[in-house]
Amino acid sequence: MKPRWDKVTLAHGGGGRETAEIVEYLLVSRLPDALKRTPGGYGLDVLDDAAAIKTGDGFIVVSTDSYTVNPPFFPGGDIGHLAASGSINDVLMMGARPIAALDGIVVEEGFPLGDLERIVDSMLRVFRDNNVSVIGGDFKVMPRGSIDKIVVSTTVIGFTDKKPIVDRELRPGDVIIVTGPIAEHGAAILAARLGIESPELRSDSKPLTDLMIPLLESYRDAIHAARDPTRGGLAMTLNEWASSTSLNIVIDEAEIPVREAVRKYAEMLGVDPLTLASEGVAVLAVDPSKADEVLEQIHSLGYSEARVIGRVREPARLKGVVIMRTRAGGLRLVEPPSGEIVPRIC
Amino acid sequence: MKPRWDKVTLAHGGGGRETAEIVEYLLVSRLPDALKRTPGGYGLDVLDDAAAIKTGDGFIVVSTDSYTVNPPFFPGGDIGHLAASGSINDVLMMGARPIAALDGIVVEEGFPLGDLERIVDSMLRVFRDNNVSVIGGDFKVMPRGSIDKIVVSTTVIGFTDKKPIVDRELRPGDVIIVTGPIAEHGAAILAARLGIESPELRSDSKPLTDLMIPLLESYRDAIHAARDPTRGGLAMTLNEWASSTSLNIVIDEAEIPVREAVRKYAEMLGVDPLTLASEGVAVLAVDPSKADEVLEQIHSLGYSEARVIGRVREPARLKGVVIMRTRAGGLRLVEPPSGEIVPRIC
Repeated sequence: MKPRWDKVTLAHGGGGRETAEIVEYLLVSRLPDALKRTPGGYGLDVLDDAAAIKTGDGFIVVSTDSYTVNPPFFPGGDIGHLAASGSINDVLMMGARPIAALDGIVVEEGFPLGDLERIVDSMLRVFRDNNVSVIGGDFKVMPRGSIDKIVVSTTVIGFTDKKPIVDRELRPGDVIIVTGPIAEHGAAILAARLGIESPELRSDSKPLTDLMIPLLESYRDAIHAARDPTRGGLAMTLNEWASSTSLNIVIDEAEIPVREAVRKYAEMLGVDPLTLASEGVAVLAVDPSKADEVLEQIHSLGYSEARVIGRVREPARLKGVVIMRTRAGGLRLVEPPSGEIVPRIC
Repeated sequence: MKPRWDKVTLAHGGGGRETAEIVEYLLVSRLPDALKRTPGGYGLDVLDDAAAIKTGDGFIVVSTDSYTVNPPFFPGGDIGHLAASGSINDVLMMGARPIAALDGIVVEEGFPLGDLERIVDSMLRVFRDNNVSVIGGDFKVMPRGSIDKIVVSTTVIGFTDKKPIVDRELRPGDVIIVTGPIAEHGAAILAARLGIESPELRSDSKPLTDLMIPLLESYRDAIHAARDPTRGGLAMTLNEWASSTSLNIVIDEAEIPVREAVRKYAEMLGVDPLTLASEGVAVLAVDPSKADEVLEQIHSLGYSEARVIGRVREPARLKGVVIMRTRAGGLRLVEPPSGEIVPRIC
């Protein structure tokens, strides 16, 4: 299918509908099925948080992301912290323990060494604190004016001796749990970009190792799907789950944790918090028979604002959609976000 | 050690002495030894072409690079072809068979879709032709003016059931073989940047799978070191080998294959071909008892210009240096290149 655009637009990088379209058009559709994954593994065939390669004794899980966030320093973090945390989280969301990382730094000529040290120190601190070895990388410089400050790419590799969590295994009846208030990263970046300072608008950038490793040890089999709702936010994550399984997901607006400051700020800008990125939150689809226990463990691990926000349902007339019961008592279709959303959010 | 610069310069990205310095200062020196590699593996402790992670039945080998080459289309290739070939070659140089790849594309708003398709098609063709699955990636867009066209990051993962080739295992007496004429990529990019058109100045960008896989099958144990001399060229590769082992390497200028057009062009610009990047050449250090057989196999695989260019020697007064017998019959110290060399060469 020839696309309806002849140039790349900011919407293609927004993480919503257009990003999915261009990735499908440029990459997925051009590869034979056998080359979308390695034998017994998972790759572009499932388009999950990360890919998995079958080895003799389990699976190597690997994720790569290029971080372009602007500004590189923001309340609650910086591009180094975000790059390390984001790639660690992608590996965790596949049910694997992160063990090693590689980085690729591309920086503008003239970038202050002190700022670069702060960024690298942030990144290394996250890797060190999570016992992830840094085993390789690349360092490039582009002439002044040919890149806006810095881009950091991170590749994180993990291992699991169980089957990875592949989100297409979502099942009817699964309970949807969100582990903390959403939209914090997106709101913080929007605020920083507009020069608004507020102690309440801070990125939630955070590796979720302390949450996911104990949870996987206790309840791996009960967790049918897991994702960190970054670009495109909760709306994109749930829509991808629904459309890839043709199941419906029904959520309750009143149950979705959004901090008051974030809600007000998003309202002021006319942005839906469901489309704003989180960088320290997991969305889980859990077997209903274990949902109470899982939620209790999440709370006991310090994620006290975790909530059940909905359920997976067999589709009725509409298939593969996300439906929200609004506070006012009505029903609203939650569409996959499209358009620019927030450029250079991560 | 506090460095003597307070801003990043183009020299830090040149792949020579300053790149080694900033990587040491920013990354290697800030990590405890245990976090420079995974147990039983190789990482920032050896700073080889790629890193290796020990698994139950062998080693996973992984390399990541961020390609910034300017212009993105050049005689002999494009940034997509280069990114796929370069990362495949890094994995091959560790003695592993490449099996899977992930890519990260960061592109400027307004970039023509047709150009992006050409780049992605080039990249995918290299992966397909080498039977490398493309299992994941990332796609980002930066606003107009905040990135010069495109940056492509590639991560390639390979596997070997033998010990990886770690270049620190270079031994006195080893024979140094170069598999083809050097400096072709560097000369082509320099020419393209200056608007010089010549059918004889073409990048050698090429995956070396067809060379390295048969060679590894026959002579793995005889190959003590292997590297593709990209940024910093042959001068940097040999100096890294010499300085990391404290051995000397003695090479013969008359034996180093450089095409006449490349030699003349480099001379005209006052650039030493030894410092110019190759993207389709391997430098091998081979056990002297097998060197003739190895060279013969290399020739039989179609690399007819492969040559023995020198030997590894026990150091005399000077340690860890590269010495060249010049055509004129003298001796010259080949220093690790420094300065800008060619910005955005790869």
